[in-house]
Amino acid sequence: MNQRIDKITTWLKNESIDVAFVHSSENVFYLSNFMCHPNERLLGLFVFAESDPFLVCPRMEEQAAKDAGWSHKIISYDDVEDPWEMIRTEWKHRSLQEESVIAIEKDVVSYARAEKLQTLSKKVQFRSLDDTLNQLRLVKDAAELEILREAARLADEAIQVGIDHLTEACTEMDVLAAIELAMKKKGVADMSFPTMVLFGEKSALPHGHPGLRRLKKGDLVLFDLGVVWNGYCSDITRTVAFDRISEQQREIYEVVKEAQQAAIDALKPGVRVGDLDRIARNRISKAGYGNCFTHRLGHGLGISVHEFPSVNETNDHLLKEGMVFTIEPGIYVPEAGGVRIEDDVCITEDGAEILTSFTKELVIV
Amino acid sequence: MNQRIDKITTWLKNESIDVAFVHSSENVFYLSNFMCHPNERLLGLFVFAESDPFLVCPRMEEQAAKDAGWSHKIISYDDVEDPWEMIRTEWKHRSLQEESVIAIEKDVVSYARAEKLQTLSKKVQFRSLDDTLNQLRLVKDAAELEILREAARLADEAIQVGIDHLTEACTEMDVLAAIELAMKKKGVADMSFPTMVLFGEKSALPHGHPGLRRLKKGDLVLFDLGVVWNGYCSDITRTVAFDRISEQQREIYEVVKEAQQAAIDALKPGVRVGDLDRIARNRISKAGYGNCFTHRLGHGLGISVHEFPSVNETNDHLLKEGMVFTIEPGIYVPEAGGVRIEDDVCITEDGAEILTSFTKELVIV
Repeated sequence: MNQRIDKITTWLKNESIDVAFVHSSENVFYLSNFMCHPNERLLGLFVFAESDPFLVCPRMEEQAAKDAGWSHKIISYDDVEDPWEMIRTEWKHRSLQEESVIAIEKDVVSYARAEKLQTLSKKVQFRSLDDTLNQLRLVKDAAELEILREAARLADEAIQVGIDHLTEACTEMDVLAAIELAMKKKGVADMSFPTMVLFGEKSALPHGHPGLRRLKKGDLVLFDLGVVWNGYCSDITRTVAFDRISEQQREIYEVVKEAQQAAIDALKPGVRVGDLDRIARNRISKAGYGNCFTHRLGHGLGISVHEFPSVNETNDHLLKEGMVFTIEPGIYVPEAGGVRIEDDVCITEDGAEILTSFTKELVIV
Repeated sequence: MNQRIDKITTWLKNESIDVAFVHSSENVFYLSNFMCHPNERLLGLFVFAESDPFLVCPRMEEQAAKDAGWSHKIISYDDVEDPWEMIRTEWKHRSLQEESVIAIEKDVVSYARAEKLQTLSKKVQFRSLDDTLNQLRLVKDAAELEILREAARLADEAIQVGIDHLTEACTEMDVLAAIELAMKKKGVADMSFPTMVLFGEKSALPHGHPGLRRLKKGDLVLFDLGVVWNGYCSDITRTVAFDRISEQQREIYEVVKEAQQAAIDALKPGVRVGDLDRIARNRISKAGYGNCFTHRLGHGLGISVHEFPSVNETNDHLLKEGMVFTIEPGIYVPEAGGVRIEDDVCITEDGAEILTSFTKELVIV
């Protein structure tokens, strides 16, 4: 854990930045192993170029931070104390009252909290910390990969549970509840995002909401779900047919499957990220469904369910060993339904490991 | 719905502000009836003092916005388009290139997005929009109250489900899963926050995480949960004893119950919010447990599960008809366990309506 903070400290020194204010729950967890969702209360990790870091958290979370292994100073506060006053006192000890350069997660820190930081020194200059942390988190180490594999394995199991619960006239919610119950019984406290179980015409809504729609013969069923396991997320999508499948639905399914496989076949270090999107999109466009694939090919996966890299056609970065992301093309045809197939992949030395392993052959339940 | 936007427009004119950038999912929903959680993608509602508003959202959400009733302009974008360029074009139509005063939710808008807004005009001045929206949302109208009542009723039911599933050696997760399954079957898509079911010594952790701890005779069981219903949250806590209760546990229970009732008895328009906290805290302190009540008395409730007012002893605002918030004192004694009792209340013309109605008499299961 301290190696990660050391990397931040080294970066601060190289960039002549005085302090990094790490604010998002995900990045605090990445650097401290302490996961905390304090709602509107202040959470922050101050990492200094020239002195020891300190953590700021609500008092009721202090013990949890220690239990997670945080051994440096903790500034904790209750609901009537002002943590910024306590931070100001620490600031004085570090002789930063006159001028300071503070790196912040510009994508995360609110304008109001940036204003608070600005009051700590007479003159404050902000620099971006986002890229530095995103780049650090981009490449997963062996311990992270081990967790991500287990998270993916649980997602595979969840798909099987979903399929097992498809019966005529059951509701999307019935199936969703069965999936989440099964996961909870395995100790999964949180899903990565609201589980999606969509029947029939609703499967054509990429961000549809499960409800009381009942399953009918001839429906496509789209499952999109993931679990949080030891702080890391999985994300899988499978689409199956109930009882029978129309010719158009079968065609869509095969096109999506081929597009997804084509992108997977291209995975290895050095490949441009955007090219993956183009490979899948070309295959779908050639089949005449280009305008029915309305989102990017995928997204990075780790502590956040959406992180770097963004797998869209404009991303010029190159694949690197240890990157973990999703590959999830889809075709959505109003009324007929939608098909999406999504795997979690990890770039290896000379190719890729596919973390999710549920079958992609067409399943007719 | 348009009445709410009209109030913003009037406020902008009075304050000589050109435009309000409404950014949080909750406030966009409040003003447009369109609920959207776009992750890292941009969502925003621009309300102008002198012209019609427009909405910015991912293209895949455009239809949902229309379905929710949004009838003004929509700027939608896909994953390779830059919405800020499209906003810039609209900005020109409104003749705001030279100078603009923009009200933003300073607590919500990220520093990076504030920087984007700053590029829209040569000179940009920010003003705070937070208080204006918080004050608007503070007082609920009849339609909102009707939804909040139903959300509270469902939370009552969830507590009953939880109690019905307490059996010796069951795990916290078993009970939690049963509760959420029952809610999903009633069409509840999301809980207000991660459901809490804590047994024995874990009930003494105000923000503990349910796991595979098994239920033993003599345990206190703490349920803290809520549902989202039509976009509005409920939040209830009940604590019960399993099989038997010790003298100390019973004493704690009675003190918390009396403290909670004392605060409820004080509810009516004109009372200082902070006094409610003091009333409950005094009762608990008099019983010798002052340092075991480690959080504020409650929080506002509505579209967000934590909103205005914050019910802590420093809050000098006065209660107003239509305010909805929680009253939730607690006493946490390491090992023996914790007791918290929480209701959702709404201030009426001359007192209060208690939205949650599950019994607060000591239940020994």
